[in-house]
Amino acid sequence: MNDMMASHGAPPTGSPVASAAGRPPVDREALAGALRALLGPRFMTEASDVEPYLVDWRRRYFGRAIGVASPQSADEAAQVVRLCVAHGAPVVPQGGNTGLSGGATPDDQGDAVVVSLRRMNRIRAVDPVNDTVTVEAGVLLAEVQRAAADAGRLFPLSLAAEGSCTVGGNLATNAGGVQVLRYGNARELCLGLEVVTPTGEVWDGLRGLRKDNTGYDLRDLFIGAEGTLGLITAATLKMFPRPAAQVTALAAVGSPRDGVELLAGAKAALGPTLTAFELFSPLCLSLVLKHFPTEQAPFGEPHPQYVLLECSDAESEAHARERFETLLADAIDAGLVRDAAVAASVAQSRALWRLRELISEAQAHEGKNIKHDVALPISEIANFVEATDRLLADRFPGVRMVTFGHLGDGNLHYNVSPPEGAAPGSADQDAFLALQPAINEVVHDSVVAHRGSISAEHGLGQLRRDENRRYKSSVEMGMMRAIKSALDPKGLFNPGKVL
Amino acid sequence: MNDMMASHGAPPTGSPVASAAGRPPVDREALAGALRALLGPRFMTEASDVEPYLVDWRRRYFGRAIGVASPQSADEAAQVVRLCVAHGAPVVPQGGNTGLSGGATPDDQGDAVVVSLRRMNRIRAVDPVNDTVTVEAGVLLAEVQRAAADAGRLFPLSLAAEGSCTVGGNLATNAGGVQVLRYGNARELCLGLEVVTPTGEVWDGLRGLRKDNTGYDLRDLFIGAEGTLGLITAATLKMFPRPAAQVTALAAVGSPRDGVELLAGAKAALGPTLTAFELFSPLCLSLVLKHFPTEQAPFGEPHPQYVLLECSDAESEAHARERFETLLADAIDAGLVRDAAVAASVAQSRALWRLRELISEAQAHEGKNIKHDVALPISEIANFVEATDRLLADRFPGVRMVTFGHLGDGNLHYNVSPPEGAAPGSADQDAFLALQPAINEVVHDSVVAHRGSISAEHGLGQLRRDENRRYKSSVEMGMMRAIKSALDPKGLFNPGKVL
Repeated sequence: MNDMMASHGAPPTGSPVASAAGRPPVDREALAGALRALLGPRFMTEASDVEPYLVDWRRRYFGRAIGVASPQSADEAAQVVRLCVAHGAPVVPQGGNTGLSGGATPDDQGDAVVVSLRRMNRIRAVDPVNDTVTVEAGVLLAEVQRAAADAGRLFPLSLAAEGSCTVGGNLATNAGGVQVLRYGNARELCLGLEVVTPTGEVWDGLRGLRKDNTGYDLRDLFIGAEGTLGLITAATLKMFPRPAAQVTALAAVGSPRDGVELLAGAKAALGPTLTAFELFSPLCLSLVLKHFPTEQAPFGEPHPQYVLLECSDAESEAHARERFETLLADAIDAGLVRDAAVAASVAQSRALWRLRELISEAQAHEGKNIKHDVALPISEIANFVEATDRLLADRFPGVRMVTFGHLGDGNLHYNVSPPEGAAPGSADQDAFLALQPAINEVVHDSVVAHRGSISAEHGLGQLRRDENRRYKSSVEMGMMRAIKSALDPKGLFNPGKVL
Repeated sequence: MNDMMASHGAPPTGSPVASAAGRPPVDREALAGALRALLGPRFMTEASDVEPYLVDWRRRYFGRAIGVASPQSADEAAQVVRLCVAHGAPVVPQGGNTGLSGGATPDDQGDAVVVSLRRMNRIRAVDPVNDTVTVEAGVLLAEVQRAAADAGRLFPLSLAAEGSCTVGGNLATNAGGVQVLRYGNARELCLGLEVVTPTGEVWDGLRGLRKDNTGYDLRDLFIGAEGTLGLITAATLKMFPRPAAQVTALAAVGSPRDGVELLAGAKAALGPTLTAFELFSPLCLSLVLKHFPTEQAPFGEPHPQYVLLECSDAESEAHARERFETLLADAIDAGLVRDAAVAASVAQSRALWRLRELISEAQAHEGKNIKHDVALPISEIANFVEATDRLLADRFPGVRMVTFGHLGDGNLHYNVSPPEGAAPGSADQDAFLALQPAINEVVHDSVVAHRGSISAEHGLGQLRRDENRRYKSSVEMGMMRAIKSALDPKGLFNPGKVL
């Protein structure tokens, strides 16, 4: 079998793949034969077919596997799981493979089966009266949004990868995105699940109920478990009324602290119609304007911080704009906001959003950077930024903090770029990347000191697994391990991730 | 020890207490001595002191216990748990003891310790910038509401028992109430927990974060577990901006089906400012007017169904009223609404709410009734009511369905009263109550046939435990039992409840 397995050599420095020491050997040929008998061509083992499933989106993790199984139904997925379990082979669930933490990439043992959910891509039911949509795990997020829109409803989960990520992956990682402030994370948007358990049974928990207190909350245990407790095959999701209008505004403020103060005012004035509240620094803006020269600077002069606000109004665009103008005029009068622009058209709204959404890509043009996806109590955000900026500047002179994120949720992407002038691919850059463990430690120690989380919306996967163990209490790790053993006693579901 | 234990004779017909067959004997005197040494007078064993903790709110379940322990801190609660576990004694957590399913009442073995959380009643922190409040489990719900109000914020959980129920109980049962439509159940309002585990350790999960993906969702596992997985000692809860105004309206419609149609229109028109949408039948209204003669009929003539709507507006009372008037005028023009009243003052709003809130009490004045707290997909509500009304009328001629509830959440209180003229306490009433198992079976079979839940917001406790086993799949029951064994291997936490 070995020549059928994709092999990718050593992983990049600083990103060891998870070890699988202690797993008994798997009869790979026998399992491959059984899966081929079950799935035909939907079980792939050719290196060229399999390769895209063995590396993560950011190309940081390279794994190996017996092959890739693509079941078309929950029953078929259960049969795949039963075969894997019978052979003692790890099961690695995978959706759109757009995760940022290596959670869907197998380890390097080569005894795993990647179970791709992409062939489970039916929209099973749309119920506009109950405001629910039931979809299979392999449906793309953008397709769920579209199905809701076709029914005159909104499915509000929205994130950069929405054209290629799947609902199953969104739920397995409890995805966040830009409208969490109003609608919550993937967890809050899900009413029911269908799951193949690690014993190969199908749990039909596809309820479309807003209230149900008939036992333990298994749904929320599978959500966010990153495929380590079972295989999500379908979900019943909430839909919402479509707002009559969405209007965007951009405000310049003096500091992250002023941004937090503006957030309180915006929440009070706009209530639940405030659907996004994003912060970014002048360095973020200048990188966007540098690498995307067709984008326009929003104000005549630079400012210390920028806040992007979105109002989703049930009445009209005029009503939304009027409320924004009142809010921002009051904030300018109070000296809190230095300048502000309310988009006068959908095109202007999109242009403002692009200034925020292009930051990651602009930063990538500057070369590799060290990303942190952290959450904090909103009352600690400004303290965290001030303290961590200082710690990093002291210890790693010249590094540049490209700080932006979902301030309304307390979620910052606190990314660190090398000092200016380090050309992409240069020795300076390599030296910078070698600092990753030390920089992570400074940032994450600071996060935890400010009562925050080291993974807000990207999950742990392989990337943050070891760090997480450093910060979680033994009580919490113990309960997590007890639950893992209870539901997956052989430890075959996505080993090397989360725990 | 026996004379110190409260004993209450046989339980009422039809409500068997849970059996605890198979528990090894507990050295009750030794455990009582150890708890007294730890807690002093905060461990009570005198029958007169202990009695109120051994019977549930509705006086359906009567239990026995070694005594009642009232720890004042999480560490003290952990010591209590360790002592109980060392002695093999069951731990029965109890908050305000207002539950409707017997979830906080010990069984009849007399070897349990009731752990009352009422002495843990400190508000630990209010953080208006993060919009969170951290409270101990024994704080009354009304006190949390007050603490939030004092900080200029809203804590939206609201239910009939709010003056005597505790936050710990609200979380253990995942309480619902009247604003779930907008703000969610207790689960959605909780960001973090402090829990004493069944091994007597304290888990500090008191996070105030909107995003955190660093492992399994233990929080939501403890929420709704009714004390069978651990002892919730504190929680960090979400606060919201206070609306500028709340306005109530009452609409008369032709049927539950028309009520569902009005709900869709109200959600579209009012968006997230629609904070309550309640349905009640003319029988409900007539019982309220009969037993509370100072209340006023809302319309000149009776109508087939009534809907109470609440709008919580971020702008003003005038704005809320204007939006209600537009919505209801359009619905009247469309023939959907037969008559409508928008409250012109806070006093009028309260009067409309009383028509809804007094239903339970009015029904109680008619004698005992058979309660059902069910949830359905909103698209199945009308079908469920029609089908179940017919089934009951055919099989139990003359029984009266007193149907009301939180239509916006798909949650009905589908209560069944005896035929008219059966005087409270009469033989007719006893004959009716003997039908309870048969009536439950008809109602709950119908609920499950319509893809609903047999316990929407009251939990399972002892009341619905056996019925629930009939309806849950073996896959789901198996996972619940595996988790229970993993976290509480000795099975000492609130035995006889939920599972």
